[in-house]
Amino acid sequence: MKLAFIGLGQMGQGMAANLVKAGHDVTVYNRSADKAAALVAQGAKLARTPAEAGEGVEAVFTMLADDKALEAVVFGADGLISTLAPGAMHVSASTISVALAERLAQAHAEAGQDFVSAPVFGRPDAAAAAKLFIVAAGAPEVIARLQPVFDVLGQRTFVLSETPSRANLVKLSGNFLIGSVIESLSEAIALVAKGGIDPAAYLELLTSTLFTAPVYKTYGGLIVGEKFTPAGFAAPLGQKDVRLVLAAAETLNVPLPLASLLRDRFLALLAQPEGAELDWSAISTLARRDSGQ
Amino acid sequence: MKLAFIGLGQMGQGMAANLVKAGHDVTVYNRSADKAAALVAQGAKLARTPAEAGEGVEAVFTMLADDKALEAVVFGADGLISTLAPGAMHVSASTISVALAERLAQAHAEAGQDFVSAPVFGRPDAAAAAKLFIVAAGAPEVIARLQPVFDVLGQRTFVLSETPSRANLVKLSGNFLIGSVIESLSEAIALVAKGGIDPAAYLELLTSTLFTAPVYKTYGGLIVGEKFTPAGFAAPLGQKDVRLVLAAAETLNVPLPLASLLRDRFLALLAQPEGAELDWSAISTLARRDSGQ
Amino acid sequence: MKLAFIGLGQMGQGMAANLVKAGHDVTVYNRSADKAAALVAQGAKLARTPAEAGEGVEAVFTMLADDKALEAVVFGADGLISTLAPGAMHVSASTISVALAERLAQAHAEAGQDFVSAPVFGRPDAAAAAKLFIVAAGAPEVIARLQPVFDVLGQRTFVLSETPSRANLVKLSGNFLIGSVIESLSEAIALVAKGGIDPAAYLELLTSTLFTAPVYKTYGGLIVGEKFTPAGFAAPLGQKDVRLVLAAAETLNVPLPLASLLRDRFLALLAQPEGAELDWSAISTLARRDSGQ
Amino acid sequence: MKLAFIGLGQMGQGMAANLVKAGHDVTVYNRSADKAAALVAQGAKLARTPAEAGEGVEAVFTMLADDKALEAVVFGADGLISTLAPGAMHVSASTISVALAERLAQAHAEAGQDFVSAPVFGRPDAAAAAKLFIVAAGAPEVIARLQPVFDVLGQRTFVLSETPSRANLVKLSGNFLIGSVIESLSEAIALVAKGGIDPAAYLELLTSTLFTAPVYKTYGGLIVGEKFTPAGFAAPLGQKDVRLVLAAAETLNVPLPLASLLRDRFLALLAQPEGAELDWSAISTLARRDSGQ
Repeated sequence: MKLAFIGLGQMGQGMAANLVKAGHDVTVYNRSADKAAALVAQGAKLARTPAEAGEGVEAVFTMLADDKALEAVVFGADGLISTLAPGAMHVSASTISVALAERLAQAHAEAGQDFVSAPVFGRPDAAAAAKLFIVAAGAPEVIARLQPVFDVLGQRTFVLSETPSRANLVKLSGNFLIGSVIESLSEAIALVAKGGIDPAAYLELLTSTLFTAPVYKTYGGLIVGEKFTPAGFAAPLGQKDVRLVLAAAETLNVPLPLASLLRDRFLALLAQPEGAELDWSAISTLARRDSGQ
Repeated sequence: MKLAFIGLGQMGQGMAANLVKAGHDVTVYNRSADKAAALVAQGAKLARTPAEAGEGVEAVFTMLADDKALEAVVFGADGLISTLAPGAMHVSASTISVALAERLAQAHAEAGQDFVSAPVFGRPDAAAAAKLFIVAAGAPEVIARLQPVFDVLGQRTFVLSETPSRANLVKLSGNFLIGSVIESLSEAIALVAKGGIDPAAYLELLTSTLFTAPVYKTYGGLIVGEKFTPAGFAAPLGQKDVRLVLAAAETLNVPLPLASLLRDRFLALLAQPEGAELDWSAISTLARRDSGQ
Repeated sequence: MKLAFIGLGQMGQGMAANLVKAGHDVTVYNRSADKAAALVAQGAKLARTPAEAGEGVEAVFTMLADDKALEAVVFGADGLISTLAPGAMHVSASTISVALAERLAQAHAEAGQDFVSAPVFGRPDAAAAAKLFIVAAGAPEVIARLQPVFDVLGQRTFVLSETPSRANLVKLSGNFLIGSVIESLSEAIALVAKGGIDPAAYLELLTSTLFTAPVYKTYGGLIVGEKFTPAGFAAPLGQKDVRLVLAAAETLNVPLPLASLLRDRFLALLAQPEGAELDWSAISTLARRDSGQ
Repeated sequence: MKLAFIGLGQMGQGMAANLVKAGHDVTVYNRSADKAAALVAQGAKLARTPAEAGEGVEAVFTMLADDKALEAVVFGADGLISTLAPGAMHVSASTISVALAERLAQAHAEAGQDFVSAPVFGRPDAAAAAKLFIVAAGAPEVIARLQPVFDVLGQRTFVLSETPSRANLVKLSGNFLIGSVIESLSEAIALVAKGGIDPAAYLELLTSTLFTAPVYKTYGGLIVGEKFTPAGFAAPLGQKDVRLVLAAAETLNVPLPLASLLRDRFLALLAQPEGAELDWSAISTLARRDSGQ
């Protein structure tokens, strides 16, 4: 399939590489072109603009940092809305706001293009290993056409709705749940540590018994080891996702007190001199600090 | 080993039965004696008082509902403190306050008896199947003598400290973590449900991907199915454990905002006409109600 | 002085009337012109567009419901930015976001116009009685020229900064403080009422002793009397102001846990069938409901 | 009237002195007798034990630091319950738990003595100036007999209920409301200060307009001036009162999220090296610290 891939950050590079490996004809674009070098070496073509990337493709994937970056690529001068061919598909894998997903769905529909939201769960290593979980929402026939491509990128695709923005709501809620794991572990560890328990032994107990999910092992390890740099997922991104989940909840009139707590934690972290450089699990330092440790 | 087992609720019955099956000489006691019938049929002896149960045993296990019940058995007239032989062991498996565990450790030491805290993780079915996780704390040589008995009751024993009350702190913190899972899932489900996503499909996605731990499947299923009776673990017990974890944290000057949120949820649930009859996962109805669903 | 007044809601009508009474030459504009009738009878001129209102004036006052309404008047086709004369002043009395105030300051400066933020404290009766408190921020010489006009509108003007948006931050923080009074009174009244105390007697005690400020009497009376219609200040406006204070705090990385609590209260209120029709003090019903009353 | 006064802290000294000045026959008792010197010089008699103080009096007033101190005086060896004459009155002015007030009411009734709860609002200067507000609850005829004495101690007596413990609930709720003022001001000041506003000018604006109650001036001044020593009301006492209001609310199944927030603030303050020495308004430092100031 003739494809484009826009956004070659840690996640995007692994995903685009898997498309190339699977034999697709892939054109890539990134704002700073040097990130495309490895992919070009593997056989990808390099575009100098988003418009050039999208020329003549069946589908363009976007994997960008935030709403603003995606808006620039889609709605900017020579953006996808005005340059993508009618009938072409835009697959948005970024973690963006529900509101932007709704706007994209409408704009692409008006332009005669197809739009699918397909955010993913998984960190860069899972992207590279094609082990992502993909949450897709959009018109069933469009998703059916994309399924073989999704199979190249992830281990499983979940199709939850025909309304694209609902996939984004699910993705944001998932990050909220991970944030909740971080906060609950942080408070529990602050408590038992001050009570004289070894945090590492405690975590081992938890993750061998009730909390065997990888998310507890991964984040528990970071918290106990106080290993917050380099950031696997930086604090400003965590703060952004909590903001977006709260914004989506506000539109629906859904109070989320636990998300509000996370919001305050992230702001307190970002108010610190180096807070923005740290992994989002560094909010765990706040529960410890508040307990005088 | 000559053993006693006091407290034959859902958990205690399964545990005591495993001791009998393993060939130990077990005397049982329960305030309402009818709960002992099945155990007596399997070979246990029935005591009419805690003192009688503890007569001449190497170790007495207690598995009672709360601080008050355990205090009555230990410090009441003819309680264990005054009747247990010097050198005999008291193994407390109940979920009790850190403060009571400290008081027990001191009182037993003054009476020349050994005290071990050994609270467990697992629901009644795990107790019956000898699949409990045991968190033990106390003098190493005492725990060593008990290890063969622990092996009959559970699948694994974690020894975290020589100070008995620390095992209770760990147990309480574990229930706090489970409560946090319930709250976070409740908020996430309230949000996506109001956003048009099917809660059951959403839960399936979560538990197949990032949140594979049994605790997410168990409680997620109860929340999505709104199946809160009969209570596996009743709301007043959940409220009690949050109260105990907050009390322990207060003694240590450790703020726990997420536990405070759980506290408010449980009080709101118990303020409802039938709230006290429901499973503790019924706090999930509050996030949905607050969102107008 | 030749003045314009745009926005004739409950607040704006009283303010504009005071300008007319003081002998100023006032042109008024409102989206629905019927609200201008009384003012025209008193001597005001009626403009059919914002541009017409602003023609040839020394200063135009705006008192509108929200950011969107003010943006339309200022940045829309024939808006104030493009039609107001160089050197003319725009005095924004609306409760708007800090971000919009910053944008207005910059846009007016680029257009050679002067901009002052002058939000007010006081309800419609205070506006009519010229008893408002005015919080003004902007260039000192511009504020000095406006002072005689402010004196006609309010009982006192506070000048806090040369940066207009700071007045908006102060105004938003003030509404946050009032919201905090409502929440704290609501919780206290829910508690003592369930404990058997008469809420009215309780409120009388509070407001005769420690809490003599009018804000406690006003909102305490609404809460105790459960008098939430007609809304003096409707719940959606309360929710909006909490949203704006949280947004300003987010930009500055300032966690506000009490504002987060208010946010959740307002969303829960708005999630109810008639919630949007009620006075913002109706969030008090949530503390009572949560306590089973 | 023949009276006794037990507990000569900052509050008790002023109150007892007013009783002496009014011509009552007053016997005083304090654990450390040196605090009684000034009163003895004014004409009070000194008792060496609570029992001696209560001998032959019509009424004994108690003004002690906490539940424990009052329990010792009432239920200890030779305590008031066993030594006070039938028909004598115990007037408890201390800020104690609702549960202890209930226990006192029952114990005194069984001993044929009268019990009235009469906690007060006001700081030591108000106690000395007889400007306290007294919240009294108990049997109407008993309160009627005490009214002339109350008139010597305070500027007004509020009689809210025949059930003594309800006065304690009101007192605790009042301290919760003051704590809420401190927290809300702290967050508002953290916000505007980081936004470039002078905190002192901001406070002046608030207390001249909407928040004219003395409580805003008093605590606002402490917060802005960061003047937390010497403590007028020390942080551990603030923490105790929040604990007691939460305990009373728990018994009644009333969630109080704002009190939970205060609880966490006080624990965080007490977790700091010198936290226990500071005035309770020092929780304001936490909002500022969390915002990176």
